[in-house]
Amino acid sequence: MADRTNGYARGRARREQIVESATELFSRAGYRNATILEIAEHAGISRTGLLHHFASKEALLEAVLMKRDLDDEANFGVTDDPLGGLQRLVRLAQHNAGVRHIVSLFAVLSAEAGDPDHPAHDYFVRRYAATQVSFRDSLQLALDAGILAPDVDVDHEARTLIALMDGLQIQWLIAPDAVDMAGELRTELQKLLLVPLGV
Amino acid sequence: MADRTNGYARGRARREQIVESATELFSRAGYRNATILEIAEHAGISRTGLLHHFASKEALLEAVLMKRDLDDEANFGVTDDPLGGLQRLVRLAQHNAGVRHIVSLFAVLSAEAGDPDHPAHDYFVRRYAATQVSFRDSLQLALDAGILAPDVDVDHEARTLIALMDGLQIQWLIAPDAVDMAGELRTELQKLLLVPLGV
Repeated sequence: MADRTNGYARGRARREQIVESATELFSRAGYRNATILEIAEHAGISRTGLLHHFASKEALLEAVLMKRDLDDEANFGVTDDPLGGLQRLVRLAQHNAGVRHIVSLFAVLSAEAGDPDHPAHDYFVRRYAATQVSFRDSLQLALDAGILAPDVDVDHEARTLIALMDGLQIQWLIAPDAVDMAGELRTELQKLLLVPLGV
Repeated sequence: MADRTNGYARGRARREQIVESATELFSRAGYRNATILEIAEHAGISRTGLLHHFASKEALLEAVLMKRDLDDEANFGVTDDPLGGLQRLVRLAQHNAGVRHIVSLFAVLSAEAGDPDHPAHDYFVRRYAATQVSFRDSLQLALDAGILAPDVDVDHEARTLIALMDGLQIQWLIAPDAVDMAGELRTELQKLLLVPLGV
């Protein structure tokens, strides 16, 4: 029984290592250019060993995307606090400034995924629809709590805040020293608020 | 002399055809995946013939990027009219909704170009710096003309308008029916203005 538990733990640790290697290589070489063999070598495992855990490059990509969403959801997920729901966006932007390779990977993939044949197309369709709902809900909560300017259109602001965060990432990737992602976002959020954002 | 003139015209027409084919293939297959041979075949010319006009894939990419900037500059360039300088941004967004493959190409390239080793990196560094100046100048012109809310921070608004346009493009590429790029931009611009944007 102890052996089996150790086996599970080892399997999980190995999968995590593979996902980490895939994230790094997808980010560095691009999803289309990175090969299963390179990822396996980077993770210190054989190609066959990798394919035992992930049956295809698409499956690996899905694991990379889900891992990031789960991490962000855990750290910057929806909250019941009206101000907290908006503060988390600034915290997420601050966090992103420290994980350049992840931001770069998502920027490239989301742009490529406009092609309906791209393996991440459906993922990004679902992701943007879910993000729109999450941002709108956070804004509606703030509106209902009376801390938002009463004429705020929550659907419009949700869509433009998502666009703003994506667009600032592009500018920041190109000129990191010229762009303060969290600072610009903070200024935009403060313009909607009747109280100090406080982050 | 007539022959020589015809030769020039033929050469120019051929170069334009090559740039058009390169734009389409870079957009469809990605810059990294498209080959010189495929582009030559698409343009109805030999590989050697193509290399006579453009010495490398990088040179071809540069021509594709410059062509788009020149076209946009001619149609949506800076103007002396304070309102016209902001109206052109909405018109550009409207225009972009009709040239999906170009928008897609620029979205992927600008995301990839965060990598300092990418052949378009320097181009995008210069392009974003120039766009920031152009947007800021348009906003300053409107501010000086008294048609902008007096507390508008033109540097911040320039940066966030560029980010907004880039980010809306990503959402529109992924879900074209769900996103009205020009409409969302118009709403944002109107929030800054003391007069109707009128476009």
